[in-house]
Amino acid sequence: MALINENFLKLSESYLFTEIARKVNAYKEEHPKADIISLGIGDVTQPLAPAVIEALYKATDEMAVAATFRGYGPERGYDFLREAIVENDFRARDIDIEADEVFVSDGAKSDTGNFQELLSANCVVSVTDPVYPVYIDANTMAGREIVKLPCTAENGFVPELPRKHVDVIYLCYPNNPTGTTLTKEQLKVWVDYAICENALIFYDAAYEAYIQSEDVPHSIYEIPDAKQCAVEFHSYSKTAGFTGIRCGYTVVPKALKVPLNKLWNRRQSTKFNGTSYLAQRAAEAIYTPEGKTQIKATIAYYMENARMMRDALTGMGFKVYGGIDAPYLWTQTPGNMTSWEFFDWMLHSAHVVCTPGVGFGAQGEGFVRLTAFGTHENTEKALRRIESKL
Amino acid sequence: MALINENFLKLSESYLFTEIARKVNAYKEEHPKADIISLGIGDVTQPLAPAVIEALYKATDEMAVAATFRGYGPERGYDFLREAIVENDFRARDIDIEADEVFVSDGAKSDTGNFQELLSANCVVSVTDPVYPVYIDANTMAGREIVKLPCTAENGFVPELPRKHVDVIYLCYPNNPTGTTLTKEQLKVWVDYAICENALIFYDAAYEAYIQSEDVPHSIYEIPDAKQCAVEFHSYSKTAGFTGIRCGYTVVPKALKVPLNKLWNRRQSTKFNGTSYLAQRAAEAIYTPEGKTQIKATIAYYMENARMMRDALTGMGFKVYGGIDAPYLWTQTPGNMTSWEFFDWMLHSAHVVCTPGVGFGAQGEGFVRLTAFGTHENTEKALRRIESKL
Repeated sequence: MALINENFLKLSESYLFTEIARKVNAYKEEHPKADIISLGIGDVTQPLAPAVIEALYKATDEMAVAATFRGYGPERGYDFLREAIVENDFRARDIDIEADEVFVSDGAKSDTGNFQELLSANCVVSVTDPVYPVYIDANTMAGREIVKLPCTAENGFVPELPRKHVDVIYLCYPNNPTGTTLTKEQLKVWVDYAICENALIFYDAAYEAYIQSEDVPHSIYEIPDAKQCAVEFHSYSKTAGFTGIRCGYTVVPKALKVPLNKLWNRRQSTKFNGTSYLAQRAAEAIYTPEGKTQIKATIAYYMENARMMRDALTGMGFKVYGGIDAPYLWTQTPGNMTSWEFFDWMLHSAHVVCTPGVGFGAQGEGFVRLTAFGTHENTEKALRRIESKL
Repeated sequence: MALINENFLKLSESYLFTEIARKVNAYKEEHPKADIISLGIGDVTQPLAPAVIEALYKATDEMAVAATFRGYGPERGYDFLREAIVENDFRARDIDIEADEVFVSDGAKSDTGNFQELLSANCVVSVTDPVYPVYIDANTMAGREIVKLPCTAENGFVPELPRKHVDVIYLCYPNNPTGTTLTKEQLKVWVDYAICENALIFYDAAYEAYIQSEDVPHSIYEIPDAKQCAVEFHSYSKTAGFTGIRCGYTVVPKALKVPLNKLWNRRQSTKFNGTSYLAQRAAEAIYTPEGKTQIKATIAYYMENARMMRDALTGMGFKVYGGIDAPYLWTQTPGNMTSWEFFDWMLHSAHVVCTPGVGFGAQGEGFVRLTAFGTHENTEKALRRIESKL
C-alpha cells in the first residue's frame, strides 16, 4: 500500500449520495412495486428549456459538417459564453468581472473539488457544518486540516468567525444543505475577515438563481473588495437543469492577493481539455431573452414546490428552515429520531427519499434535507403520504 | 504566497500548446493574410460520423421532454456505454474486462492528469522522453520525483527499463509524440518488470484505433497478467473526432495489487459529476455497425495523409519516424536546426504549424511532430510549400 495516497484511507467508506442510492436500490429490490418518490439528491426533473434544446440542435448541425465542425475549444471556455456570463451574471448587477476571470468547466462539482489543488497542503481550511461533502472530502484527500464552523438553529445557520486563523473558508449561499442565506451585511463580515486575515473565500453560488429576497446577494462580488479575497463557483445544473448536460463556471479575479487566476489557468490547461462545445452553446442559450424567460418559469415551478412543502410540513408540526431563497428545506426530525432513523422511516413508511442531515456533518444530526426539484404531483403526493404516516 | 501549492512554481511558464497558440496568433496578427495550415496540435478536422450526429439529435430530443429527460448520471458512466465498451473494445479481442472496471469521463486528458491523485506524493514516477506533457506536469504539481526514460532514434524509440526502482511508469503507445509503437513482446517486458517491481503502468491507449500492423497490441491487457499492474486510458477524441464533444474512459482492473478501482471510484464520485449524457450517447453510437464503418473511414482518411506525409518528407530528405500505426510523424529537423528554430522557419516560410519536439522533452530536441489530422488538400498544400521553401 506504500504506493497509495494514504489520505484516501481517512475518508468515509462512500460518498453520501452513493450510500443513499445503495439503500434505496436495496429497498427497491425487496419491494419492486413500491412507488418511491425522491426528495433526496438534488436532481432536477423538468426538461431543458426550448431555447437550450434549439441551441443543442444547432450545435449538433455544426458538428456534422467540416466547415463548421469544432474540435478542441479553449480550455477556459469559448469567448461567446464567457462574454455572455460577464454581461448577464455580473455587469447587469453592476459587478465588474472581465472575461479572462471566468473559467468555464463541466460543472461546479469538478471545480469545487479541484480548486484546492492550487493550495499548499499546509493550508488550514474551514467549512460550515453541515456542509456539501465535496469541500471536506477533496481537502481530506489532499491531507489538509479542516476546521468546522457550526451552523445551527441556535445561531440562525450563520457561522461564527473562526477562533483561530484559517487560510481558506468555503461558503455556500444560498446554502446546501440548509437552504438558508446570508444578507449582504452578514456576508460583508466574512469578506472583511478574509482581507484582514489574508485568507481566501471559496464562494459556492450554485443556487443563486433561486434567490427571491432583495437583500440576499447573488454574488459575493456585490460586497466591496471581495475581488481581493474571493473565488466564486457557478453551476448551470440547478439554474437551467444542466445536471445531465454538465456545465458551470468559476470566477477567479485577477485582483486576488495570490495569483490564482494564472495558476488555475495552468491547472486547467494541464488537466482539462475544455467543456463540450454542445454544453457551452446550450449554456449561452439561457442568456437569450427567451432562454431567460424559460428558465425563470422552471425556477418558479420548483419554488412553488418549496412553498407547498414549507406550508405542509409546518402544518404537520415540523420545524422547517430554508426553502424561501433556495430549493432546499432543512427539516428537523420528529421526536428524537436521528437523521438516518428518519430517512429509514421516510423510505419504508412513506416511500419518500430524503437526505439525512448528518451526512452533511455532525451538526446536521436530527435534520433531513428535502429538495423542491420534484414535479408538483410527486411533491404533493409525498407530502400527503408523510402526513398520513405520521 | 504561503497559501499556494509551491510545486506550481516548478512548472514551465505555460503549457506547450498554449505557447504554440500564442506564437501562431502573434504571427497572424502581423500577417493577417497568411494562410496558415496547422499540422501542429493534434486536433481533428473531419466532422462527426452520421451515426454520432443521429445519436446526438435523439439524445437532445430526450432532454426536451420530462418523461425522457436525464439529470445526473452515474459518476462512472451509464451502463449502456460501459457495456458497449466491454463488448467491443475488449471482449471482441478476447480480453476479459468487466463493466465495473470501466470509468467513463470527459476525456483522457482529465483522467491521465487526475489519476496520480491516488498515489502517495513519495512515489517515484517514470515517463518516456519525449512525452505528452500532461504526465510530467500533473506529477510536478503533486511534488513527485520524475525519472525520464530516453526514447531516441538510437534505441528505436523503445525505452530501456529504469536503472533504479520506480513506482509508476507512464507508457503511451501508439506513442504521442513519436508515432512509434511497441510490439507485444516489447510491451511484455514492461508488464513483467512492473509485476516484479510492484510498480504500476499507466498505459495511454488514446491512439489505438490507428494501429494497422498485426503485431501491435491495441490494449495492454493483451499481455498476460497486465491486469495485475496496469491502468489503461482511452479517448474518443482521435478515434471518433470527439475533441469538441469530450468523452473517454479509463480501465481500472479489480485485479490490481493496490485497490485503485475502489479509490478511483471514490475520487470520481467526489470530484466529478459524470460525463454529459449527450456525449455518452454519442460514444455509444460509434459501436453500432454503421458507426464502426464510418469511424474506420475517417481513420483511413487520416492515415492516407500520414502515408502522403511519410512519402513526401522522406522524398525531401527528411528522416521520418511514426505515421504507420499512428497519426503522428516524428520528423528530424534539417541541418542542425533546433526544434523551435525549425518551428519558426515552418511558420514564417511555409506558413505551416508543427509542434517543436523539444516541447515534449529534452530528447525531442532536433525533432518536430507533424500530425495527419488535416484535410487531404491542406496536407498536400503544406507538403508542397515545405518542399518549395527548402
